[in-house]
Amino acid sequence: MSSAQDHPKLILTKEGVKNIREQLGNIPLFDASLEEIKKEIDAEIASGIEVPIPKDYSGGYTHDRHKRNFIVLQKAGVLYQILEDEKYAKYVKDMLMEYEMMYKTLPLHPKTRSYARGKLFWQCLNDSNWLVYVSQAYDCIYDYLSKKERKKLENNLFRPFADHISVDSPQFYQRVHNHSTWGNAAVGMIGLVMDDQELIDRALYGIKGVSLDKSAKDDDGGFLNKDGKAGFLANIEEPFSPDGYYNEGPYYQRYAMYPFLIFAEGLHNVKPELKIFEYKEGVLIKSINALLNLSDADGDFFPLNDGQKGMSYYNSALVTAVDISYHFGGNNPGLLSIAEQQGKVLLDDSGLAVALGVKNGKAKPFDKKSINLSDGSDGKQGGVGIIRSDDIELVFKYASQGSSHGHYDKLSYSLYEDGDEVAQDYGLARFVNIEQKGGGNYLKENKTWAKQTIAHNTIIQDETSHFKGTYDIGSQYYPEKYIFDIKNEDLQVASAKEINAYPGTEMHRTMAVIKYEAYIKPIVLDIVRVLSDSTHQYDLPFYYLGQIMKTNFEYEAFNTLKPLSDKNGYQHLYLEAKGISKGENVTLNWLSNNKFYTNTSITSEGDELLFARIGANDPEFNLRKDPGFIIRKKNAQNATFVSVTESHGSYSPVSESAVNAYSAIKTISLLVDTENYTAIKIVNNDNSTLVFVVSNKDNSLNTNHNLSILGKDYKWVGPFAKFN
Amino acid sequence: MSSAQDHPKLILTKEGVKNIREQLGNIPLFDASLEEIKKEIDAEIASGIEVPIPKDYSGGYTHDRHKRNFIVLQKAGVLYQILEDEKYAKYVKDMLMEYEMMYKTLPLHPKTRSYARGKLFWQCLNDSNWLVYVSQAYDCIYDYLSKKERKKLENNLFRPFADHISVDSPQFYQRVHNHSTWGNAAVGMIGLVMDDQELIDRALYGIKGVSLDKSAKDDDGGFLNKDGKAGFLANIEEPFSPDGYYNEGPYYQRYAMYPFLIFAEGLHNVKPELKIFEYKEGVLIKSINALLNLSDADGDFFPLNDGQKGMSYYNSALVTAVDISYHFGGNNPGLLSIAEQQGKVLLDDSGLAVALGVKNGKAKPFDKKSINLSDGSDGKQGGVGIIRSDDIELVFKYASQGSSHGHYDKLSYSLYEDGDEVAQDYGLARFVNIEQKGGGNYLKENKTWAKQTIAHNTIIQDETSHFKGTYDIGSQYYPEKYIFDIKNEDLQVASAKEINAYPGTEMHRTMAVIKYEAYIKPIVLDIVRVLSDSTHQYDLPFYYLGQIMKTNFEYEAFNTLKPLSDKNGYQHLYLEAKGISKGENVTLNWLSNNKFYTNTSITSEGDELLFARIGANDPEFNLRKDPGFIIRKKNAQNATFVSVTESHGSYSPVSESAVNAYSAIKTISLLVDTENYTAIKIVNNDNSTLVFVVSNKDNSLNTNHNLSILGKDYKWVGPFAKFN
Repeated sequence: MSSAQDHPKLILTKEGVKNIREQLGNIPLFDASLEEIKKEIDAEIASGIEVPIPKDYSGGYTHDRHKRNFIVLQKAGVLYQILEDEKYAKYVKDMLMEYEMMYKTLPLHPKTRSYARGKLFWQCLNDSNWLVYVSQAYDCIYDYLSKKERKKLENNLFRPFADHISVDSPQFYQRVHNHSTWGNAAVGMIGLVMDDQELIDRALYGIKGVSLDKSAKDDDGGFLNKDGKAGFLANIEEPFSPDGYYNEGPYYQRYAMYPFLIFAEGLHNVKPELKIFEYKEGVLIKSINALLNLSDADGDFFPLNDGQKGMSYYNSALVTAVDISYHFGGNNPGLLSIAEQQGKVLLDDSGLAVALGVKNGKAKPFDKKSINLSDGSDGKQGGVGIIRSDDIELVFKYASQGSSHGHYDKLSYSLYEDGDEVAQDYGLARFVNIEQKGGGNYLKENKTWAKQTIAHNTIIQDETSHFKGTYDIGSQYYPEKYIFDIKNEDLQVASAKEINAYPGTEMHRTMAVIKYEAYIKPIVLDIVRVLSDSTHQYDLPFYYLGQIMKTNFEYEAFNTLKPLSDKNGYQHLYLEAKGISKGENVTLNWLSNNKFYTNTSITSEGDELLFARIGANDPEFNLRKDPGFIIRKKNAQNATFVSVTESHGSYSPVSESAVNAYSAIKTISLLVDTENYTAIKIVNNDNSTLVFVVSNKDNSLNTNHNLSILGKDYKWVGPFAKFN
Repeated sequence: MSSAQDHPKLILTKEGVKNIREQLGNIPLFDASLEEIKKEIDAEIASGIEVPIPKDYSGGYTHDRHKRNFIVLQKAGVLYQILEDEKYAKYVKDMLMEYEMMYKTLPLHPKTRSYARGKLFWQCLNDSNWLVYVSQAYDCIYDYLSKKERKKLENNLFRPFADHISVDSPQFYQRVHNHSTWGNAAVGMIGLVMDDQELIDRALYGIKGVSLDKSAKDDDGGFLNKDGKAGFLANIEEPFSPDGYYNEGPYYQRYAMYPFLIFAEGLHNVKPELKIFEYKEGVLIKSINALLNLSDADGDFFPLNDGQKGMSYYNSALVTAVDISYHFGGNNPGLLSIAEQQGKVLLDDSGLAVALGVKNGKAKPFDKKSINLSDGSDGKQGGVGIIRSDDIELVFKYASQGSSHGHYDKLSYSLYEDGDEVAQDYGLARFVNIEQKGGGNYLKENKTWAKQTIAHNTIIQDETSHFKGTYDIGSQYYPEKYIFDIKNEDLQVASAKEINAYPGTEMHRTMAVIKYEAYIKPIVLDIVRVLSDSTHQYDLPFYYLGQIMKTNFEYEAFNTLKPLSDKNGYQHLYLEAKGISKGENVTLNWLSNNKFYTNTSITSEGDELLFARIGANDPEFNLRKDPGFIIRKKNAQNATFVSVTESHGSYSPVSESAVNAYSAIKTISLLVDTENYTAIKIVNNDNSTLVFVVSNKDNSLNTNHNLSILGKDYKWVGPFAKFN
């Protein structure tokens, strides 16, 4: 064990560095990562040090330069330790001294938009990023510096820096929020390096004696600190469910993971007695598994809540996550295959362990299966159910509000095939770090469109979002899990209920992914029951992607397009065409990514069938002009929406051949729809039939059910069954 | 040399088969192709023979089955020859006998939509496809059959079949058209197998003594036979330019190539004295080189005229083309690398040669360079100029009408980067072989939208298409090449004039692809000069793809969308927003495929800046909802449009970093624009400048020019120059 005086000790350790040096040249993945970083840093050193006076928002020059600097400092520090070349230490020292010189008289950042302004950056969040990285660099050159130099840096730079983002910015620091996690990690990591117990305690438990106004809100509309909790441990406690689901969803989890894990690694190394990786039954390691499972076949995270599409486990934060999870979480060989895909490892003990594992041929595929991830710190606030069946991935979201980055999308779902979106979750309305688009920040359409219920594949009552689109209300409630059963791979079922989104109205959605010989690929059966104490209009949108090939119903197409309505997200939808159901099955057959899909829905006579297009009231061209199909039931008290989505064929523009261009389904019908049971019958083109029954009130696994339908007795045990 | 009695002799030859058999197991690419085909055919044999009574249009069962049958027959015949396994011969024989049984009493196909109905298929074209393939199968089992069996097949099937598609269908056969090429090849190939000189002559020279009404038109609006020419040789003579450009463009060339080449191979084998591969200075081999050059970095053909996107040199017709071109065209090692990408070869002498070449490591990259392909049988009817510079590909189309599949798009262009479209050519409005979409045939939007001028990146006068959108007029004219100069890779220039599209108006477009240190990638300078004898409205659309990031001008966005107009394609464009120029540079900055682009245009005060969206008046959802940006000059007699398109940056959704998100150009201006000269000045953000001058009336390479601009003398030789 290192003593408190030994350096490095935070992420690198004296023993670890010794091991690494011994293995160098003999561990391909590590050697390649080292070589890449060496090349990058040598080029930076050659181009000289720049520490500009802070001025810009993200995307601007000073922002990008300081961001680049902290990354470069961390890497240069590591290179010094591994390669023992003093030029790296000198570079780190020289740059830190420039920061010291500037920081000691630096005022608040001139840009005023943040609820918690930083000094180097426009918000404390970015300042915290800086310190998380730079504390690692400082640790690496600690012994290279004289005592006097250290004192200078600590007194004029690091301690005031840590104070600014904590005691001087409690609205940022003293919370349970991903911003605070960065703040806590920053303060804690520099505290560990400086061996400063006060900072370490402030990091772990929050600022002593400070509590915030519990009703105050941040820039994103989230409560600053409703429960009064703070500090790193509270930040682990609160947002992670026991399954490791992070309440804001995978996109922000990816962002938040780095400070969680890197500080945890530091704590593990310097304060092993805290057993940080065992905290809350090992939730940090579990969260990495959850996060990896929240990605599609290409490794892209499902864009739940405010998630930007395209973020994936190739992000560098996931290199950290995968390596730490492997090293500190039981050497799961599946993680090695992801590390191989990532093509790089951390330059520390965990990265060494991964590189050695890969080198020794221990990698196995990371096999993503169906999984239910409970939400809420107690795991009882709904969740996200992912059903995987061959290449089909169904993401059923019945999670809680998801903090300030949550969307009003109770019981919504999205559907993927082999990494491509079939029914999309729109994600956020933002172009992160693209300055042309509102400085790279959230666009106003994020609130007016992306967060609204109509932007999701779920029920909207009376054209009003769930919880009236109000965060205060939404964050009090969550749906209730009803079924998540994946035992039978031919019939995997997820079901949940939501009774608070619209007071007086209960929504119950049951989704089944079914494999059956009549179908080429697994089909997705969707049943939404809405029961209300009064009459309403119910809309169920379906955001397919691609181009319509054919419908089986008549509709009127409009040559003049108008928005569907003027608020709650509807103002962003053009109505392209409209049909009226004659009470029969309605089919939508479309082509996307050269695959043929069909959605077949049961409708009632008079249901409106609306073809919508996103992009109305979008003067800055901030939205994607994607299509949607909405089934609208007017003046209904109770309503049941049933549809089946099939992926059934393909097209090759090279051979110009269309294979299985049509649905395999002849009809679907509602056999029973009572308080107790809903039964759906599917008749296929090959004349095979399939009856799916779900018990609407009893989800016990042991109940014996006996239901007579059209003179035929159906008997089963448990909440649902399928009969052929 | 085989005697006329030896079989096989058509595509396979006795000697060739002997060689192949000797090499088997030792030629990976060939062995793999053979194995794949064997697997495919064995499965077909196992599933039994089906020869249904013809009934359906393309996409329907009987159509697809007969299409499958001819492919299977051809392959089974080849397998019999190579593997000497009688089961293949028996299978071919049995199926042919079923065809014989059916055909001898078969009436015209019941579907009536074609101008020339077939018997097995709804159109003679498909019947001809059948015979082109089946004649090869017949050749392979010729010696396996008894004389009596051969007589039966020839008298009841092959000869009446050949007669139906020729003497009984002169409107199909007796033309210069890709349809006729199939017909000629079909008749000729069965003639070669049967050693029937009458059929061979009919194939080569057309039906003796038959001439068609020269003013009659076919289904697509093309003249049936304006010049009275017919037969295979005329079909080589007419549509190919001396450079090998096929007048309908690469999509139809790909389709047409197979009968050209496979019949040529048969003629080469059976009638070597015809020297078919040397015909018209070896144009068939040249045409393959032209076709390969008409593809982007991914091998996808540029969708000129009625071209479906995604068609590429992975199409099986191109396997034929590449192999034949290699074997009969001088063993170009670049073709071997394409064969490697294709991953398969023909199972004949040419395929063997390719497989051996690849095996012996002779493959080299097929290096696509800038190339001008003249159009017209004499090479004097305009052309297509392709300028390649690093990853940028500019396709400048100044070709003639392109037969019945041509578009009214004189002087239009499309732009590609590394295989992705930057400024698109819309292509056709059709989903080939997707039955849901109009039976897989041309959709009405092909005429109302895709063919119209407004669907292309070129000038539209008074909202009317070139040549009034009239084929009779358009097919009389072609633009005149003015410059195609690619000697200096930093300044490649293409320029052409069009004086007939709008009588009284001359259009002159000059495009330059420029590499310069101020730019990260080559930029595309576009100058369009319009001179007229009266005032008009001129529109210049720019069909970028992707999402707008930023503009530098004010505009009004509309919440109600209406079509731009009611005809000539404008009825399919919604007007999304509109700005009015203040006479300054107008910039459009957008993101596509995670790359940043900027288009900067010189405008005049009052120019209208229209944001359009394709998809109005599209009740069947047949069109893609892609964007366009139109600069409109009203009440102008002469007008000069100048713009620069830059690809300058990139975005990574994984690292969330935007690199070089902005244009490198500060301003562009028109220094001179006279009868004799147009000079453009570009000032860059790094304050470097660039002046491009083009002589508008003298394209001689030797003329000395001397032009004084703002007191500075510019001297150069030849039609254009660049000054820094």
